[in-house]
Amino acid sequence: MAIIVQKFGGTSVADAEKIRRAANRALKAHQKGDQIVVVASARGKQTDQLVADAMELNPNPPKREMDVLLSTGEQQTVSLMAMALEAMGQKAISFTGQQVQMITDDAHSKARIQSIGAEKLKEKLADGCICIVAGFQGVDPNGNITTLGRGGSDTSAVALAAALGADYCEIYTDVDGIYTADPRKFPSAVKMEQISYDEMLELASLGAGVMHGRAIEFGKKYNVKIHVRSSMNENTGTIITHEVPQMEGIVVSGATCQKDLAKIDLVCVDHKPGNAASIFAHLASHKVSVNDIIQTEVSPEKANLSFTISRSDLGSAKQAIDEIRKKVYCESVFIREDIAEVSVVGVGMRSHCGVAEKMFKTLAENKVNIDSITTSEIRISCLVNLEDVDAALTSVCDAFELDKPAAERAQP
Amino acid sequence: MAIIVQKFGGTSVADAEKIRRAANRALKAHQKGDQIVVVASARGKQTDQLVADAMELNPNPPKREMDVLLSTGEQQTVSLMAMALEAMGQKAISFTGQQVQMITDDAHSKARIQSIGAEKLKEKLADGCICIVAGFQGVDPNGNITTLGRGGSDTSAVALAAALGADYCEIYTDVDGIYTADPRKFPSAVKMEQISYDEMLELASLGAGVMHGRAIEFGKKYNVKIHVRSSMNENTGTIITHEVPQMEGIVVSGATCQKDLAKIDLVCVDHKPGNAASIFAHLASHKVSVNDIIQTEVSPEKANLSFTISRSDLGSAKQAIDEIRKKVYCESVFIREDIAEVSVVGVGMRSHCGVAEKMFKTLAENKVNIDSITTSEIRISCLVNLEDVDAALTSVCDAFELDKPAAERAQP
Repeated sequence: MAIIVQKFGGTSVADAEKIRRAANRALKAHQKGDQIVVVASARGKQTDQLVADAMELNPNPPKREMDVLLSTGEQQTVSLMAMALEAMGQKAISFTGQQVQMITDDAHSKARIQSIGAEKLKEKLADGCICIVAGFQGVDPNGNITTLGRGGSDTSAVALAAALGADYCEIYTDVDGIYTADPRKFPSAVKMEQISYDEMLELASLGAGVMHGRAIEFGKKYNVKIHVRSSMNENTGTIITHEVPQMEGIVVSGATCQKDLAKIDLVCVDHKPGNAASIFAHLASHKVSVNDIIQTEVSPEKANLSFTISRSDLGSAKQAIDEIRKKVYCESVFIREDIAEVSVVGVGMRSHCGVAEKMFKTLAENKVNIDSITTSEIRISCLVNLEDVDAALTSVCDAFELDKPAAERAQP
Repeated sequence: MAIIVQKFGGTSVADAEKIRRAANRALKAHQKGDQIVVVASARGKQTDQLVADAMELNPNPPKREMDVLLSTGEQQTVSLMAMALEAMGQKAISFTGQQVQMITDDAHSKARIQSIGAEKLKEKLADGCICIVAGFQGVDPNGNITTLGRGGSDTSAVALAAALGADYCEIYTDVDGIYTADPRKFPSAVKMEQISYDEMLELASLGAGVMHGRAIEFGKKYNVKIHVRSSMNENTGTIITHEVPQMEGIVVSGATCQKDLAKIDLVCVDHKPGNAASIFAHLASHKVSVNDIIQTEVSPEKANLSFTISRSDLGSAKQAIDEIRKKVYCESVFIREDIAEVSVVGVGMRSHCGVAEKMFKTLAENKVNIDSITTSEIRISCLVNLEDVDAALTSVCDAFELDKPAAERAQP
C-alpha cells in the first residue's frame, strides 16, 4: 500500500464539474488500495477576485490580512471536494493549513515551511479517509495565517509528501509532463520520462517551469519523487527525481529561452573591494532581481560589470543605478532591451565535453550572434538578439535532437 | 475607557462601500477613547452562494465540511474590514473563530459556545488596535471548525462582550431598535428605550425577533447590555438589559402576531401515562417543532390534545401523526391551517392584574373570535382566525396604547 499525494491546481478545480473530476481521480487511486492525500488550490479566478476585493478597500493591503483573505480560497475548495467525495460514498475530510499544523515563518505572502504535523492525517488515512488539504497556506508559530507565495500549493504538496513519507507526489496540470522544450516554440519537442531535481531547478529558474523552484528544492531536500502529469488523461507524465546513472548519458535534457530580459552594462566601474556588493545591494533594495552577472577587468583600477534583469524591472533598475553612480564611479551605462537568452540544460554535461562547442557552432551556422555566455555545471546560456531567439532555440533543439526520446539520440 | 463590541450583519458589510462605513463607525467610537471589538458576518449573499456551491456537489453535504465552507464568508469580511481600517490609518487586526479560541461543542451547524480566550484580544486592544472577529464560527475541542447556526453572529458578539467584560454589545441592524409592534403591521408603533431580556426572549420566540433567542439568553446569563441600533444613523436604539424597577410600570411592552401557524387537535386520546411523551417524541423525530400545547381531560380515560406548529412543518406532522396513531389510540384528528396568533408581552403583567381581561374584551369588541389561549408569566397569546389577525393586532396595540412611549401611557 502506497501513500500518494495528489495536487490539483486552480484550473483543475475551477467549477463543480472539475472538482468532481479531481475527486473521482483521487477515488480511483484510493480504490486501488493506496492512501490518498489531495492538496488543492483555490478555484479558478477566485484568488484574483479576492485580490480585487482587497484593492477596492486598500490599494496597499497589510500582508497579514491579505493572507487571511486569500487562504479562504483554498479552504472553500477542500470542503467542496470532501463533499464531492462523500457524495460518491467515499469517506473524506478536509484540513486547513492550521489544522494540518503546516507551521511556517511569519513572512506573510511568501512564508517558508518549518514543520508539518502529519499525525492527524495518518490517523484519518488509516481510518480509510481521503484527506483533502488546503494548499498555499500555513500558520506561523503565533497562529497567524500565512501564505507561501507563488507556486505555494506545489510546495505544500511536496512538503506533505515528505512529512508523510509518501511514495509519490503527483502534480496534476494542463500539460502531459515536462517537455524537452516548450511545444509552442518547438512543436516537435518530446515529453521526458524523467528529469533530475537539478535540471528541473535550472529550467524553473529560466522561466520554463511547470513547477515553482521552491517545490523542487523541497523535493530534492527530502527525496520526494514528483510526478508531473495531466489532469485530463491517464498518461504517465514526467518523474522528477534524484539523478540516476542513466541520466548521465543524456547530455542535453532540455532547452529553453527567455524573452522578457534586459541587459545592463556598467562600463569602467572603480575596481575597489565592496563596490560590486554596494551596487547589487542597492538594486536589491529597489526589489530588482538580478540574473547572470559577468565581471571583466579592464585595467587594475577599472572593471566592466554586466548583468540581466527582467525587462519589467528596468524602470526601478535605472533609478537604482542613477542613485548608486553618486557613490560609485562608473564611466558609462549601456542598456539593451532587445536581448533574449537561449539555454540548454543537462546533467550529462558534467561528464561530457563538447556541448558548449556544439551549441556555439550551431548558433554560428544559423547566423545568430552571441552577445555573451554564462554557464553552470549543468547549463549553458547565450544572450542573443531578441529577433534571433526563436531561430536560435529551434537550431539548438535540432542540434541536440530534442525531437527524439533520449534513448534514440545519437550518443555523444 | 469603555470596551464596546460592535456587531455588523451581512447587509451592513455587503460591499466595499458598506464595509468602509462600518469600519468608519468603529473608528469614530475608537477615537472617543473606547476599546472596540467588531464582530462581522459574511458579506450580503455570500453565504447563499456558498450553500449553492455545496448543493451542486452534494445535495446532503456533511455538516463538518459545510462549516469549513461557510466559515470562509466571515473570514473574508474580517480581513477586508481590517484592511479598510488600515487604509484609514487605524491599527486593526482580524481574528477567526479559531484564533480567538471560540471553543464550542461539536454540534456542527448549530454548535454552542463553551469558552472564549480573551487574552489575545485584550493584548491587541491595549496595543491600540481595533480587533475584528469573525462571527458565527468557532472550533470544537479537536480543532474542527464549527458554526453557531441562525443568529450565530449575534451570539458570537454577546459572548465576546461577556468574555471581555464589555460595557455594551451594540447590534447594528437595518431598523432603529425594538418597536412596540412591527411597524409594517402597526404603523404608529414606537421604539422602546429599553426592554428586559425576558420580554425580548418571548418576542424572539414569537418570531418578532430582531435578534435570535440564543444571543439574548447569553446576554441574560452573563449580564451583557445589548444595544440594538441602526447602522444608517447615530440615533440611540433600544437597550436590552436586566429588569429594572421602572419596567414594572409598563404592563404591556410589545405586541406581535404569528401568521405561519397550523393547529392540530388530537381528539379523545387514550389517557395513559407516557402517551403524550410518545406523541411529542415522535413529532420531534420528524423534526417538527411544537409550540403551545393544551391538554384537557374529556373523561378519566380520554383527553384532548391541541398544539400549534409552523405551517411549513404540516406535511411532516401529518405523517408523524399517521404513524403514531398505529400505537396510540385517538378518535379523530382536526387540523386548522387558517389560524394565527396574537400576543402581548410585558414584565409588568407579573404585578398587574386585568391584562388578560382587557385583551379578551378588546378582541370581543372587535368581533375577533378566540380559538384558544395560552399564557406565560409575562405573555398572553390568543389563537384567532387568520383573516382576523391584522385587526386583532391593531385593536390590541390601540388598547394598550402601544403608539405612545411607555411613560405617556395611562397607568393601569
